[in-house]
Amino acid sequence: MYGCTGRCLRVNLSAGKHSIEDINPELLRKFLGGRGLGVKVYSDEVDPKTDPLGPENKLIFVSGPLVGTGAITGASCNVVTKSALSGTIACAKTRGHFGAELKFAGFDMIIVEGKAESPVILSILDDKISLQPALESWGRTTSETEAVFKKNLADKWAARDTYLISIGPAGEKLVPLANIVNDSFLSVGGAGIGAVMGSKNLKAIAIKGSHSLAIADSARFVRVVTNLINKLNSAPLTSHSMSAWGSAFFIDLCYQKGMLPHKNFQGAAFTELTELKDIGTKALSNAFAMRSSGCFACPIACLKKTEVNNPFFKGKGMAPTYWAIGALGLNCGVSDLSTIGMANMICAEMGLDPIAAGGTVATAMELVEKGIADRDTLKLELRFGQGEDLLHALTLMATKKGHAKRIGKGGQALAGEHGTSKSFMGVKGLPMAPFDPRSIQGMGLHFATCNFGPHHLYAYTFIEEVLGVHEKSDPLSTDGKPELVKRYQDLAAVLDSLGLCNWPLMGVKFNNIVPMINSCLGTDYKADDLMKIGERIWNLEKLFNMKVGFDHTHDTLPGRFLNEPITDGPAKGQISKLDEMLPGYYELRGWNEKGEPRGDTLQALGLKR
Amino acid sequence: MYGCTGRCLRVNLSAGKHSIEDINPELLRKFLGGRGLGVKVYSDEVDPKTDPLGPENKLIFVSGPLVGTGAITGASCNVVTKSALSGTIACAKTRGHFGAELKFAGFDMIIVEGKAESPVILSILDDKISLQPALESWGRTTSETEAVFKKNLADKWAARDTYLISIGPAGEKLVPLANIVNDSFLSVGGAGIGAVMGSKNLKAIAIKGSHSLAIADSARFVRVVTNLINKLNSAPLTSHSMSAWGSAFFIDLCYQKGMLPHKNFQGAAFTELTELKDIGTKALSNAFAMRSSGCFACPIACLKKTEVNNPFFKGKGMAPTYWAIGALGLNCGVSDLSTIGMANMICAEMGLDPIAAGGTVATAMELVEKGIADRDTLKLELRFGQGEDLLHALTLMATKKGHAKRIGKGGQALAGEHGTSKSFMGVKGLPMAPFDPRSIQGMGLHFATCNFGPHHLYAYTFIEEVLGVHEKSDPLSTDGKPELVKRYQDLAAVLDSLGLCNWPLMGVKFNNIVPMINSCLGTDYKADDLMKIGERIWNLEKLFNMKVGFDHTHDTLPGRFLNEPITDGPAKGQISKLDEMLPGYYELRGWNEKGEPRGDTLQALGLKR
Repeated sequence: MYGCTGRCLRVNLSAGKHSIEDINPELLRKFLGGRGLGVKVYSDEVDPKTDPLGPENKLIFVSGPLVGTGAITGASCNVVTKSALSGTIACAKTRGHFGAELKFAGFDMIIVEGKAESPVILSILDDKISLQPALESWGRTTSETEAVFKKNLADKWAARDTYLISIGPAGEKLVPLANIVNDSFLSVGGAGIGAVMGSKNLKAIAIKGSHSLAIADSARFVRVVTNLINKLNSAPLTSHSMSAWGSAFFIDLCYQKGMLPHKNFQGAAFTELTELKDIGTKALSNAFAMRSSGCFACPIACLKKTEVNNPFFKGKGMAPTYWAIGALGLNCGVSDLSTIGMANMICAEMGLDPIAAGGTVATAMELVEKGIADRDTLKLELRFGQGEDLLHALTLMATKKGHAKRIGKGGQALAGEHGTSKSFMGVKGLPMAPFDPRSIQGMGLHFATCNFGPHHLYAYTFIEEVLGVHEKSDPLSTDGKPELVKRYQDLAAVLDSLGLCNWPLMGVKFNNIVPMINSCLGTDYKADDLMKIGERIWNLEKLFNMKVGFDHTHDTLPGRFLNEPITDGPAKGQISKLDEMLPGYYELRGWNEKGEPRGDTLQALGLKR
Repeated sequence: MYGCTGRCLRVNLSAGKHSIEDINPELLRKFLGGRGLGVKVYSDEVDPKTDPLGPENKLIFVSGPLVGTGAITGASCNVVTKSALSGTIACAKTRGHFGAELKFAGFDMIIVEGKAESPVILSILDDKISLQPALESWGRTTSETEAVFKKNLADKWAARDTYLISIGPAGEKLVPLANIVNDSFLSVGGAGIGAVMGSKNLKAIAIKGSHSLAIADSARFVRVVTNLINKLNSAPLTSHSMSAWGSAFFIDLCYQKGMLPHKNFQGAAFTELTELKDIGTKALSNAFAMRSSGCFACPIACLKKTEVNNPFFKGKGMAPTYWAIGALGLNCGVSDLSTIGMANMICAEMGLDPIAAGGTVATAMELVEKGIADRDTLKLELRFGQGEDLLHALTLMATKKGHAKRIGKGGQALAGEHGTSKSFMGVKGLPMAPFDPRSIQGMGLHFATCNFGPHHLYAYTFIEEVLGVHEKSDPLSTDGKPELVKRYQDLAAVLDSLGLCNWPLMGVKFNNIVPMINSCLGTDYKADDLMKIGERIWNLEKLFNMKVGFDHTHDTLPGRFLNEPITDGPAKGQISKLDEMLPGYYELRGWNEKGEPRGDTLQALGLKR
């Protein structure tokens, strides 16, 4: 397939050896590449019952076929493994330039196996592959790791175009809330994958490549890409809102619709306690001097770089996104944007997933508020609304210093230890992304059914339920939600597998993107063909989770969302009507009432149980 | 040449006929296209002594070879004629989509000749060329003209992708300050060309095309373009400053360096009278809800659309740029951004050049302040700092209503009528762009020598003198300025001829752009080859002006800049040291001491006197 290199680098860290393999073209046809290819190879090679932190687990890095070609937003490398936090299949996306650089080095995929004797950095300079001791960077934060590696490169010009993906102290210490960070401070949003990388003693992968990628019909490709850039440049959300504030502009919308979490998703809506002027886009612009930056080949450029310099934290990083503000801030009762910004940067430096870490701190704070835990049992002060408690907890849990070890295990374990799972707001062990499922029913259904736990990126129904782009769908209604959720789940699987971002959907329809895919890859896909591939990938992931032991009893939401109406604010009185939606969703997916794919469904998708 | 259509549409309005001609490929080789081709054809076909408003004058619209190909910022159509205000050769650029649509219709160039009996609109739908009566739109503003034309199209889908260039009431009334407007409200910055279009009874040109353009090496082109987009997305000025505020972010810089004009460039620096917080980027963001928009194939997207709704003005348009704030606002003593925004929109609707109109009002205000003119002689109240006087004057001068006829002739004529050319701040009849030449010496030398009068777009030395991109050059020093000015003049001629914008130079070097040009056009130019073509174009324009009657006595600046030091602010005590720089500039250009190209210079450039 054009766009692909067709090559896979397999590195066995136990043996200290590597080999280069051809990728079976049939797999590309059936699974596209990226997430689809990664999940296929992973589930073929790894026993679902494997210990995520054992040497038998594998860690796959795989860029989609559109990555590095110049296709708009074609930038992401998917990291596939089994989550050390939830035990489900895990797949998280890089942003920035790392994914494209992997392709330029001549590889679509890296499969990391085994465990190095001592910490190493995998260095890839085209076909020059080496494992270098990571002594100097072990223990360091992610941006320091990158700086140290680049400082040691002989050639300062090479350093400029070298991209790293690395773990911070959290991953090294096998903290299950750990994620991976690329390009200095871009969080790869998958809780638990950082611990898997740490368990392999793999501190970082550094890549620099010099190849370029073949495009099937480049004349047509140029026209289609230019047309898409023009469309995104004139659509208001992609040309303005995302460019000015990144996803943080969702705050204003979600505030008005009562979708923001507050104090571990407890009763009162956030509107009663904080004013929009303190947390909205205007406040953000005042709190941070932001500089726009884009991923490889992105005309939207939603990344907002900034700097912080105060006694608690000094450094460069990203201004907080919606996810950071919601999960690290509001859900912990903290609304001071400057504190939230620091919390977000600490997560990036330490290699902690901001959503999972925030959800865990919020769980602990609720336990304290309810008198179930206290300063003595947690050995930490953890009070809703206290920014310094949040910052302190994040720093300690990442290093397992002091007694933060206990909360570093995650919210589910923490609540369980205190005998009350009711205070853990998460699904399949993973803390919730910061949308209240009671006021946005489609996201709620997705959170309950997502193969990766309650994470927004795998089905952006928000685009229709809140932004109202393309079609409008009332967020409070359950009408049509099974169809909406299935469609966006399958669509995300397609985009992740190609290596594209969800954001272009805020400006153009998926149909408009299809000609870019075909002219680049030399394929002749219809939109429906691609959606069918997305459905195949979704079912393959589902099959893996079933073998791990997940069943329909895990397709649920915390009782708070199902039984306790929101007590205040614009969405007062709402609960999640998951029960109304779930049977229809299973039906649409061709699954039985226990949420298991039927034989005919799998057969039609070319899958086997 | 790839990228080009090779075709020219010639329309004779007197005869009501048109023909389609092949463009001589030799001309493309020597002059690239766009501005270069337009000036070459114009000066071959039109007598320099011709009356700009007579039927013998011609009006050429010509898009560069990179326009519409997907080359970054490849969007501009150049409008070439003889200026009705200055009498020099005129060349102004469209922004937005009109230039690309001309190429998609299958033409590089339109030559408009003669004069229609009654007002017409030239409609181009690929090879379907027609002249339609403009009765319904004559007398209307530019956005109304577009709306009326589109309303009358049978097909609403066709309307969406149809682009217009039109004149407003000012052009119809042959006001020499009139310009042309495309894509509803994008000013094509050339004072006098709107009157030429009006003299031909040509209200508008409407285009919709369906062809696409051939690219020589599209695989390489994709890689180079993607690389450029990535570079622009990570360079601070192109990814952030221009995206957030457009050129208005220059205000902050120029304020700090004492470069802003004030009250017709009189003594006191603006810093003493207005604070940056009232006119800088923060104030702009507060004054206008701005929506970013980009020209065809532009990753920078510096156009800032906005809406205004108050008793004086209601409508959509562009938030004020640096040029509008400087020329319409500060130079008239007006610092209220909301008033400046309205003034700018009135200019766009009426088809007035904002810089020329602002400079003219400022001249009138100085005459009043000095007691040389007054309310009775001007029949208008014109007081520095009075926003309502400014808005009133702009509306009247465009329609020749009331007694604004007199100031509608332009600042030079107005000052002349009052016996004091000293109060006209302009060169070759054209009012100054809003940089004080005393505090930015390079721009001053350019203003004195520019073939089109004192306009910034034809040599952006500001990039090195203020922004300090690539190289830094002290704006107060004359060191190296002849070389700097010549280089940027020649460079602008190249970019205009290819159809590119100046802005990418804020993020990448010209050398980085050359591979995009070659892979698109199938050429093998070195940067120096292109600069030589730029020099050829500059000299050809110079030869035309010489035949009109311009000589070295016109290569000067108003006495105020040469003799009166700035009295206050950061640049206190500075004067323009034009005399120090001009001989070196002539020398570098290979011109004699009278500013005429030497025989050997012309011969080396393949030109004849």
